[in-house]
Amino acid sequence: MAVTEQRPTKADATRARLRAAAVEAISRHGFHGTTTRDIASAAGLSTAALYVHYTSKAELLYSISRDAHEETWEVVRSAIESSDHPAEQLRRLVHGFVAYHAREHTKAIIISREMAALEPDHLAEIIVMRRRIESAVHDVLADGVARGVFDIDDARLTTISLLSLGLDVARWYRDSGDWTPEYVAERYGALALRIAGARID
Amino acid sequence: MAVTEQRPTKADATRARLRAAAVEAISRHGFHGTTTRDIASAAGLSTAALYVHYTSKAELLYSISRDAHEETWEVVRSAIESSDHPAEQLRRLVHGFVAYHAREHTKAIIISREMAALEPDHLAEIIVMRRRIESAVHDVLADGVARGVFDIDDARLTTISLLSLGLDVARWYRDSGDWTPEYVAERYGALALRIAGARID
Repeated sequence: MAVTEQRPTKADATRARLRAAAVEAISRHGFHGTTTRDIASAAGLSTAALYVHYTSKAELLYSISRDAHEETWEVVRSAIESSDHPAEQLRRLVHGFVAYHAREHTKAIIISREMAALEPDHLAEIIVMRRRIESAVHDVLADGVARGVFDIDDARLTTISLLSLGLDVARWYRDSGDWTPEYVAERYGALALRIAGARID
Repeated sequence: MAVTEQRPTKADATRARLRAAAVEAISRHGFHGTTTRDIASAAGLSTAALYVHYTSKAELLYSISRDAHEETWEVVRSAIESSDHPAEQLRRLVHGFVAYHAREHTKAIIISREMAALEPDHLAEIIVMRRRIESAVHDVLADGVARGVFDIDDARLTTISLLSLGLDVARWYRDSGDWTPEYVAERYGALALRIAGARID
């Protein structure tokens, strides 16, 4: 299926500004401590203008979360498709997942912290997106075990441990720190191979 | 310095009940969505009675966080003292750290999520307690490298990765799930040795 690239419209740009303002505000004051008015005014809009684009603060959070999960899925999917070798797939996907969580740490942390603020239908959809990512990682591990490349005791728990490493980067990573996203991603990619007990060829 | 074990007083029991009620309420509604009245009434007390024990909701959160960090430190310290071998120290401390975060997941997650709600002095104190834990883990890694037991590229980043695994257990662990805290702790202890590149003797 071909995806048509379209030029962002003025409405797209406004929505992006609203999402960025929401991430900032929620990161400072929490979802419940932030009003739609705070978000609108940080984006230079009236509250009424915000409602043209999003029906509620919860829908805005959902839109932020859905986009980020789409992007994360894309990172994972493309890493897996870029190689036929489980060790290389794993290294690249952990690299991409970690780099994403370091670069997008503010967004990633509010998405994780405010999951409970999503509407039930939206939460269910996000959980499905997360499961798809988990399954893809699990399949790489299982494939590596089947091909004698990995040595893994419990593939489900190992999947969780690998994702934990990446997710928690969003909690501790600071733009002002000593490490670039690339540095952390490089090293975590190598740690992932150790965790999977990858045979060094 | 000898520590005198004392029988818990009635006030101690009341404070423990208030802390447990606070953990429950904050876990459901967030720190800012919870009132001292909610906490007091969940503990079967008046708001006035709560203020006999804690001057504010933030002080109650601090007390929960400080106790949990003391307990975590005790887990780490005793694991390190229980062996002279870095690999065994690391395995035991990750085991204990992970088991603690699985057992105490509700408490651990609110402590991590609500750090910003602490008063500045209290936050500074908690950060010192966290640094002490990080330093102890880092020292075990550095000692293992010096003794040729571990193979580690960046001991600071490896320390963070090991703590991330344990901290994130508090996010995903469910009492109703398939795994006991002991099961997860066992496997994560083994993963920690892989992460540290421990030589298998």
